Amino acid sequence: MGKVFAYNHKITSNETDVTQKINIGKMVDLMMLASEKQGNELGVGEKKVNELGYGWVVTQHLINIIDLPQINQEIKIWTKADSYNKYFTYRKFGIEDMDGNELVTMETIFVLMDFKNRKISSLIPELIDPYEAKESKKLKRFPTVPKEMQVQQRKEYTVRFMDIDSNKHVNNAHYFDWMLDSLDYDFLTTNDLKKINIQYKNEVRYGQKVESEMQLVIDDNQKFSLHRIQNGENISCIAQCFWK
Amino acid sequence: MGKVFAYNHKITSNETDVTQKINIGKMVDLMMLASEKQGNELGVGEKKVNELGYGWVVTQHLINIIDLPQINQEIKIWTKADSYNKYFTYRKFGIEDMDGNELVTMETIFVLMDFKNRKISSLIPELIDPYEAKESKKLKRFPTVPKEMQVQQRKEYTVRFMDIDSNKHVNNAHYFDWMLDSLDYDFLTTNDLKKINIQYKNEVRYGQKVESEMQLVIDDNQKFSLHRIQNGENISCIAQCFWK
Repeated sequence: MGKVFAYNHKITSNETDVTQKINIGKMVDLMMLASEKQGNELGVGEKKVNELGYGWVVTQHLINIIDLPQINQEIKIWTKADSYNKYFTYRKFGIEDMDGNELVTMETIFVLMDFKNRKISSLIPELIDPYEAKESKKLKRFPTVPKEMQVQQRKEYTVRFMDIDSNKHVNNAHYFDWMLDSLDYDFLTTNDLKKINIQYKNEVRYGQKVESEMQLVIDDNQKFSLHRIQNGENISCIAQCFWK
Repeated sequence: MGKVFAYNHKITSNETDVTQKINIGKMVDLMMLASEKQGNELGVGEKKVNELGYGWVVTQHLINIIDLPQINQEIKIWTKADSYNKYFTYRKFGIEDMDGNELVTMETIFVLMDFKNRKISSLIPELIDPYEAKESKKLKRFPTVPKEMQVQQRKEYTVRFMDIDSNKHVNNAHYFDWMLDSLDYDFLTTNDLKKINIQYKNEVRYGQKVESEMQLVIDDNQKFSLHRIQNGENISCIAQCFWK
């Protein structure tokens, strides 16, 4: 089984929104930071990956929220590489309170992007072996996000300089802000997220315009929202959020 | 002289932009966090201030940048309350590398907002005394930002749920993103900030539309940009940025 890496953190006010709970994009950032720190510790950090001509790209997050961290709360954030096959590596993340109670879990699929052609490359032992994850020929099946939706709300955004990262595309965490902003203030301050399934399809780059589209489904048995980030003809990302 | 508070931090990738240097808004956030931490340590943190019916509001930052912190760099962030008079408190901030070299300094004016009428209140000894700053009858003079400008670039933004903080208005750090996004990619990747003088005039709230207006002045002796965030008829903030 893969090596575990963990660090402690105290939630600061600038990581929270008006509800004083953590912003979802920033929460995902904190978990991704655990894998970044682990990469550095094992000598296969972002710098090394970039030097070899590659970048790690997330294709899917499955997030399960038991209790969203709040302002000033001390938390422990952990991660481990779980398994991998020829193209995909599966990583687990979690957030616990200081008594070891589970607050959030996340499963993530990563692929390696070759900077030469910006296409997916097969994984490289040099970048994989240090994590000591198990190799598995099987493709792990994650639930997929429904592709069909009836758009009820649409908002447009232009990608800003501050939205792009060193891979020169919009950082994953920004998609959560675009998606959730399609729900209104009253909904966001009176409903709590339970689960998020997000699939990334195509990168978005500086200056491009995206539309954040949303459908909210509420009936006796369920309450979920469907989201799509559309970049011209391309779908950039789709997601399903389940609400308490 | 006021009590000093300091903490160490290592710059993470999500705090940097495509240049791998720290995002200015996030840098200001890190410094403001020092004063938040100090407030908590002295028993006059945000929670206590809010309970008394008040909130701290920044009216001006003067930022001096010697060398912008970069990805993975370890830094020390310090702050102290410098002096105060009836309405204003003056605070100093700094960022140093681990050898004690100064990277950034910031001087900030704070006022106390009364939540009942959202107006400025006179300062309260209970919230001031623990910092042990010196009282001064004199009003400290900060350079002002030129009010007149010839707008060359204008971009519109709608305030998102994620832009507002527990004071229910746009957090100061977001203004830097709006302002700097009015300059283009080529300019931002080839010019470095030297100084920022930013004055906050009126708060901006959820759902409001703002326009970020900019004029760039380059001649033999100087290179600066003027910025104005306009919220309908109200000026929300003005700034002058000096570039290397």
